[in-house]
Amino acid sequence: MAELFKALTVEAAREILTRHLPSMRPAVRVPLLESLGLCLAVDVRAAEDVPGFNRSTMDGYAVRAKDTYGATEGMPSYVDVCGEVLMAGEAAGGTGVGQAWRIPTGGMLPPGADAVVMVEYTEELDGRTIGITRPAAPGENVVRRGEDVATGEVVLPEGHRIRPQDLGILAAVGVTGVEVTEATRVGIISTGDELVGPEERPGPAQVRDINSYSLYGAVAACGGQGRLYGIVRDKYEELRETLEQALRENDLVLLSGGSSVGTRDVASKVIDSMGEPGVLFHGIAVKPGKPTVGAVVQGKPVFGLPGHPVSAMVVFDLLVAPLLRSGTYPAGGKEDVSEFPLWAVITRSLRSAAGREDFIPVKLYKGAGQIYADPVLGKSGLIATMVKANGLARIPAGKEGVEAGQAVEAKLF
Amino acid sequence: MAELFKALTVEAAREILTRHLPSMRPAVRVPLLESLGLCLAVDVRAAEDVPGFNRSTMDGYAVRAKDTYGATEGMPSYVDVCGEVLMAGEAAGGTGVGQAWRIPTGGMLPPGADAVVMVEYTEELDGRTIGITRPAAPGENVVRRGEDVATGEVVLPEGHRIRPQDLGILAAVGVTGVEVTEATRVGIISTGDELVGPEERPGPAQVRDINSYSLYGAVAACGGQGRLYGIVRDKYEELRETLEQALRENDLVLLSGGSSVGTRDVASKVIDSMGEPGVLFHGIAVKPGKPTVGAVVQGKPVFGLPGHPVSAMVVFDLLVAPLLRSGTYPAGGKEDVSEFPLWAVITRSLRSAAGREDFIPVKLYKGAGQIYADPVLGKSGLIATMVKANGLARIPAGKEGVEAGQAVEAKLF
Repeated sequence: MAELFKALTVEAAREILTRHLPSMRPAVRVPLLESLGLCLAVDVRAAEDVPGFNRSTMDGYAVRAKDTYGATEGMPSYVDVCGEVLMAGEAAGGTGVGQAWRIPTGGMLPPGADAVVMVEYTEELDGRTIGITRPAAPGENVVRRGEDVATGEVVLPEGHRIRPQDLGILAAVGVTGVEVTEATRVGIISTGDELVGPEERPGPAQVRDINSYSLYGAVAACGGQGRLYGIVRDKYEELRETLEQALRENDLVLLSGGSSVGTRDVASKVIDSMGEPGVLFHGIAVKPGKPTVGAVVQGKPVFGLPGHPVSAMVVFDLLVAPLLRSGTYPAGGKEDVSEFPLWAVITRSLRSAAGREDFIPVKLYKGAGQIYADPVLGKSGLIATMVKANGLARIPAGKEGVEAGQAVEAKLF
Repeated sequence: MAELFKALTVEAAREILTRHLPSMRPAVRVPLLESLGLCLAVDVRAAEDVPGFNRSTMDGYAVRAKDTYGATEGMPSYVDVCGEVLMAGEAAGGTGVGQAWRIPTGGMLPPGADAVVMVEYTEELDGRTIGITRPAAPGENVVRRGEDVATGEVVLPEGHRIRPQDLGILAAVGVTGVEVTEATRVGIISTGDELVGPEERPGPAQVRDINSYSLYGAVAACGGQGRLYGIVRDKYEELRETLEQALRENDLVLLSGGSSVGTRDVASKVIDSMGEPGVLFHGIAVKPGKPTVGAVVQGKPVFGLPGHPVSAMVVFDLLVAPLLRSGTYPAGGKEDVSEFPLWAVITRSLRSAAGREDFIPVKLYKGAGQIYADPVLGKSGLIATMVKANGLARIPAGKEGVEAGQAVEAKLF
């Protein structure tokens, strides 16, 4: 039991978790079209040049650039047209001095040619000769062999999360199956004697389970594979049984609820009973989200998230989302836009405690040259707060608040 | 044939398309957990209050706030503890003057009580009486009945795209199945005599099809359902046959490629032959992306996207993505953050033509109080440009360029 009772900063919590995280994630090969949103398990290198030939980017004439030097509308350069390059075809010959080939966009430059003159800058004289009215530089209107991707180049690095354009470049280098790390399987358990499922009608002092559903959505949005284990009463044996099953069947487990002290203690005890190192911290210096439990058992992360719906989502975003997206926490480079990519001007002053990071649901909107963030005030027990917001703003630990008009880091949420 | 040959602004292109778009999208009922990312087909209203009772947000004592007025550490207010409220239970009685109940976080306030005093602000005297050392305001540490959601309230409006937190609020109001508009089925056709699939080895003047794959990814990222129809040669009959099939089987069709004038003409002719209104515009005032064809046939949008990979993705983002996400284009309110949510400082000067919108792949990174955008320069025929970038910046039509240090609209991409 490595439990720490002091509220940790997010950074410290991430560091402790990182020390205990499994270092290898299993890889699996998936067809190219199914790889969107998944992370590469290996570097992908190009086995050949893309394109494999010098390619025209315009409809026009392939020429030797030298032959066009000094050309003007008044004094065109005259060249002989040897013939036409067809799409997907090779020219029937080379390009000698004073020679040109008609070429379509995407066509292959004939040997000797090093530039393409757009049709607009030519005038036809007779069937064989054209006048060029503007000089072309070598390489003009040409994509050179290997200019998009060169043989041996790392096209995409290990760990990279595949975006739409990445599917394009993978297709370009002939990749039809991709080695990716498997989607993280996430078991989701809600705890609380007062909870019922959405299909039930709550009794007088009962409420419906919210967190299982918002967390399931958050897991899916990060590329994970969520699985609900329902609602567990605040009983040691019942929780232990469900947690054991969830750990067997998943790579990571989320418990939520149990915001009362007694319940939190039950969850911690259950987690600690299941293996080393057990609970790593109990409380983080975050608002909302303080009563968070971080643990690793059987080599798998287990998080005890707060019961309040806003708190649960904020802590998920800080500690769980990065693991699902890339298996690790961001290196923490200050220039990194992956976590809070926006700077927004906060429209009202907010207090915070020094040493604590604050996260505020906000309504983001655009002004001239600025994004503004209107705080959506409301208790962290209200899911409606998060639903009315379209973003989340951050007040870092070093500050005791922000004044209206100051810039804060924010993200769409 | 409503064809227009002038290059349109993006706004004008959207307006013309909007006039011809089908107004109704079919609705379908899906289980709650499968509704993430889909759009609501109807308003969702709450049939009951959430929570259904006044609920404590702290471990402490439920009291009548009046009984605590004036309480200090030196002069505590003394109240009698009637008993304990259990989680999910009702109190065995009411809260008279000078009375209190022990209550856990999430517990139901007994009749008469209107505030909860945290344990920290109480001192126990004997088994029955406690001293309260700080006054509580009415409603303090309480979520009132219906405070999260009130009966009859529109929880989420028609057209809203479901986010993780929305799954939470839907569960809270007892929704287990959601009426959503069906995901848009998108047929994707690549045209070009020079194209081969990723599984093939390109011949001397051939290249692999990139756009089918990046567009498939872009469709999926917008919640659409892509389907590839492979590579079609630049022949009228072949294209017509494939387009007919794609239109039968989908709600929207994307053609890409055919950037040479002749090929574009074939695509336009084929589209026009298939029904009214046919091609609506041919060319938009966008760089990259000028040679774009917009059409509606058989009540379904058909886009002829440019063959250059960067151009195809930019035009997809402008004209197709909004339709997949919400069925319409954004209302265009200047405050809307949905399209370009960032303002970034561009790090080098770029020229643009007045009357044309320019989109530049950029590397976004964070500085102190600012996001910066480094242009990733490269021909729009290079997919690598888009892969090296992590964002897209926009120079609006009114400007002839931007100076290094100016703010530009941008987005992660």
